[in-house]
Amino acid sequence: MSDDLPPNPALLPAGLRDLLPPDAETEALSVEQLMAVFASHGYERVKPPLLEFEDSLLSGSGAAVAEQTFRLMDPSTRRMMGLRPDMTPQVARIAATRLINASRPLRLSYAGACIQVQGGTLVADRQISQAGIELIGPDQPEADAEVIAVASQALASLGLTRVSFDLTLPQLAPMLIEEAGIPAAHRPELMRALDRKNAAEVSHHGGALAPLLNELLLAAGPAARALQVLQAASLTPAARLLVDRLEASVAAILARAPGLRLTIDPIEFRGWRYHTGLCVTVYAPGRHEELGRGGRYLSGGDEPACGLTLRPEALLRAAPGRAARPRVLLPPDVDATLAQSLRQAGYATVASLSPHAELAAEAVRLGCSHVLRGGEAVAVVPSSSGD
Amino acid sequence: MSDDLPPNPALLPAGLRDLLPPDAETEALSVEQLMAVFASHGYERVKPPLLEFEDSLLSGSGAAVAEQTFRLMDPSTRRMMGLRPDMTPQVARIAATRLINASRPLRLSYAGACIQVQGGTLVADRQISQAGIELIGPDQPEADAEVIAVASQALASLGLTRVSFDLTLPQLAPMLIEEAGIPAAHRPELMRALDRKNAAEVSHHGGALAPLLNELLLAAGPAARALQVLQAASLTPAARLLVDRLEASVAAILARAPGLRLTIDPIEFRGWRYHTGLCVTVYAPGRHEELGRGGRYLSGGDEPACGLTLRPEALLRAAPGRAARPRVLLPPDVDATLAQSLRQAGYATVASLSPHAELAAEAVRLGCSHVLRGGEAVAVVPSSSGD
Repeated sequence: MSDDLPPNPALLPAGLRDLLPPDAETEALSVEQLMAVFASHGYERVKPPLLEFEDSLLSGSGAAVAEQTFRLMDPSTRRMMGLRPDMTPQVARIAATRLINASRPLRLSYAGACIQVQGGTLVADRQISQAGIELIGPDQPEADAEVIAVASQALASLGLTRVSFDLTLPQLAPMLIEEAGIPAAHRPELMRALDRKNAAEVSHHGGALAPLLNELLLAAGPAARALQVLQAASLTPAARLLVDRLEASVAAILARAPGLRLTIDPIEFRGWRYHTGLCVTVYAPGRHEELGRGGRYLSGGDEPACGLTLRPEALLRAAPGRAARPRVLLPPDVDATLAQSLRQAGYATVASLSPHAELAAEAVRLGCSHVLRGGEAVAVVPSSSGD
Repeated sequence: MSDDLPPNPALLPAGLRDLLPPDAETEALSVEQLMAVFASHGYERVKPPLLEFEDSLLSGSGAAVAEQTFRLMDPSTRRMMGLRPDMTPQVARIAATRLINASRPLRLSYAGACIQVQGGTLVADRQISQAGIELIGPDQPEADAEVIAVASQALASLGLTRVSFDLTLPQLAPMLIEEAGIPAAHRPELMRALDRKNAAEVSHHGGALAPLLNELLLAAGPAARALQVLQAASLTPAARLLVDRLEASVAAILARAPGLRLTIDPIEFRGWRYHTGLCVTVYAPGRHEELGRGGRYLSGGDEPACGLTLRPEALLRAAPGRAARPRVLLPPDVDATLAQSLRQAGYATVASLSPHAELAAEAVRLGCSHVLRGGEAVAVVPSSSGD
């Protein structure tokens, strides 16, 4: 390779890509479908900007994603701005400033692109779409339940009806370790062992706490069984409060969304950075990829809030495909009213800019499924022998 | 003011702002409405990333917007990336690379946010939404006409039926000045005089060309009259070719979209930087703000193309308002099927998370228009005397 070769203009930076037809339309329509379900449950849309001053973007819950934030200097103020890596802290900022006087519960929704400095290990994307809701004000099991039930309905509207919601309490393991007085020097290895769900290593590093931790590790699974284990476990009062709240939230979720697939992984904590209570990860059946995640946090530093953010790129991979829109090639002298009625009937009309002797062949060349003949759209069949 | 005061988290950099309810939803629904009209005419959506390597983002037609581009270093490759200030060069890149083998005419649509280093004089926004189409391949008047006709239908779908399309030939004035041999030292002042439409200054700096230039300045206005002046004017052969093509495009536009409000400003050139033929600016009636602009250019350096980009923020200001969605407050024990039927009927349902003795008062507090009573949504009237 020579340095003199011009760079390949088709080459995009790692983790950034072009969505081509039909994926770009499918993604956009899916996002609007999610937003329509959110709106039908009273969630009102906000649209924060792609860039903000670094100190507002990274304050509060935004601090957790500081190292994933690209920074730029604003030439007019010489202050640093950041490209948002996550929209939830922006929505929390709006709730705590411009909408501080709006009635609570405040229900907000949002959709947009975020940019992260580095892609993940499973998915390398650095530009990430988000579509989510935040329920700001109430700190009740019914609020947790609403967010999960509304997200579940939004996913169902895309044909994703068999998703599972995996609940977790990211504070539980650190709290047990703190309260058991595990020496600080042992904690990183113990946390790593818990993260890897390695029972032998947990036994090795967990001291007197090891039996309980391994019991909780084994509890991971369907919600009813996990709750039984948690109820029977010997917990400190503070841990018991967390578990009681989890139980109340599960009851509220099942009251609002009977039949939802709920699992609990009580000591999962990885990736939860600014959350203060129940958290949830959404998975498609049989897939390892997350469709979304969310949980309880403090908006503006002190206001209870709970939200869930879906990942449209992951939904695009998991959701059933959409039927392609039929395309009909029109001759140049087509009647405008007829063309309009075809569009209203769901066709994409493709205008010929010049007359063609063989309109059907031209339709095939242009990827049209239909051609206009005798005032009607007639399906064309691609010739297998060429012309 | 003290340096010790924490920065106001509500403060956003100049030209960047939060869209709040209901504007954020109105803008998003408007964009999807435009995209649906584009799709119904066979334009297929692409979604390029927000960031690209600088050398691909700023090559070709992108060079014209280089000084409006924020740059960032990609930490993994140490190469510079740019935040897109305009999507058209990205769509041209896709047409010239990933879609180089797709059949022509290639019809592409796109919608997304762009970031510019500096806001404009009329509108200070630095984050700009775009929604547009590009028709790549054909170099015919019918292609110019299609782009304008489809944009006009898209605007009409938002209730913007009385917009005007102002056509211009940004090459005409520079060509006449070049061919007339106006000394290079006089050209900047002459161009400035033309830009300001100052006939006295044009006479002063235009030499033997001044009468023709002032004739063309006066020609600006409704298309039919402007074309008469252009036909009668004494033009060089190259300029005559440009004008003949303009005339053919006007005929094709009116054939495809009879009744469209067309004006011509034959020597307007400002702001057209990578265009090679007919250009157009879209204005709402009685407003100075542009709703969009577009024109003919070379995609990938050598392929004829014509496009038009609408500005959703400007459409939001110009389009008639949408009716607010009715919101109904539901009691906590509402029947799920009833709630679902209300959403299907177009209501946003707002769930009470706890019982309320005065559901109607709570509905008013939450900005709901309706409350559920006897299984039906009943309008609530805000009390004027408080409670």
